[in-house]
Amino acid sequence: MGIDPGAANLGFGIVRIEGNHMVALDGGVVETTPDLPMERRLARIHAALRELIAWHEPKAMALEEVYFGKNVRSAMAVGQASGVAMLAAAEHGIGCSSYTPQAIKMAVCGSGAAGKRQVQKMVGTLLGLPEPPSPDHAADALAVAICHGGGSGRREAIAIAQETAGEQRGERVAG
Amino acid sequence: MGIDPGAANLGFGIVRIEGNHMVALDGGVVETTPDLPMERRLARIHAALRELIAWHEPKAMALEEVYFGKNVRSAMAVGQASGVAMLAAAEHGIGCSSYTPQAIKMAVCGSGAAGKRQVQKMVGTLLGLPEPPSPDHAADALAVAICHGGGSGRREAIAIAQETAGEQRGERVAG
Repeated sequence: MGIDPGAANLGFGIVRIEGNHMVALDGGVVETTPDLPMERRLARIHAALRELIAWHEPKAMALEEVYFGKNVRSAMAVGQASGVAMLAAAEHGIGCSSYTPQAIKMAVCGSGAAGKRQVQKMVGTLLGLPEPPSPDHAADALAVAICHGGGSGRREAIAIAQETAGEQRGERVAG
Repeated sequence: MGIDPGAANLGFGIVRIEGNHMVALDGGVVETTPDLPMERRLARIHAALRELIAWHEPKAMALEEVYFGKNVRSAMAVGQASGVAMLAAAEHGIGCSSYTPQAIKMAVCGSGAAGKRQVQKMVGTLLGLPEPPSPDHAADALAVAICHGGGSGRREAIAIAQETAGEQRGERVAG
């Protein structure tokens, strides 16, 4: 289960490793509105994630690491949201891992400097989806899940899919 | 209930407003060890705070705002710890407020630039304790609680106590 943490929009994505590839089981966004006080927003996120975890019974949770440097208040909200997400994981006895945005892009696209659209496209390709997943936060969460799945011994499958996608892109550019 | 959030040492302090002064009901530190994974540490903090809230039934939670700028990893841990603290509050139906370190120092000492020892001393004086509270995180949490209590219409009581403490300090210096 991948998480793109945030208080207003928390992305989640659940993938299953099947042999040498991965399939998407679920993906979406938990939204909360700013008219609610922060503690109530966190409670909603926590409840939604508990439900998702109880339903899908993921083996692990992987989170995109909080990105500091932008806005202090929004960074704090991201930290708080990731805290209740990790708590939901702990309550179901599953472990958490964190990955930097660079590590996630590297795992999904083969480059730590890949753009947002490129990540979305590759997530769609790797998971065999008919089109790139949306919204952004769900795609990012699936990317974190892929990154973690790759780290658990599926790097080769990802490398093969990346190569295939690269060839497809090459053909399209050429044709 | 005041909270000085942190993953390794989370300070808590509970005060009751009685007429024109405040008394300390409880104060201490929830400690977690770094050998536990972060999600388990957050679960311990959450469980400890739930117990404290169920026991004392505070009317509100006040948190010291996360201080960014130091270490990114520790700032993230503080955000995550404050997230599970706020969740514990929401689960008991109590609201949360956040205060900057400057606002807390201002409320307790009358100066936003007051030092750590000065805050500890004033917390002890305001709460009528025989000596300044310790450890530091518990004292800081009591200071947040005082700050919030002052904000709920007890500013005068604090001003009087500050004046008295100032006089006492003056006497001591003079004598």
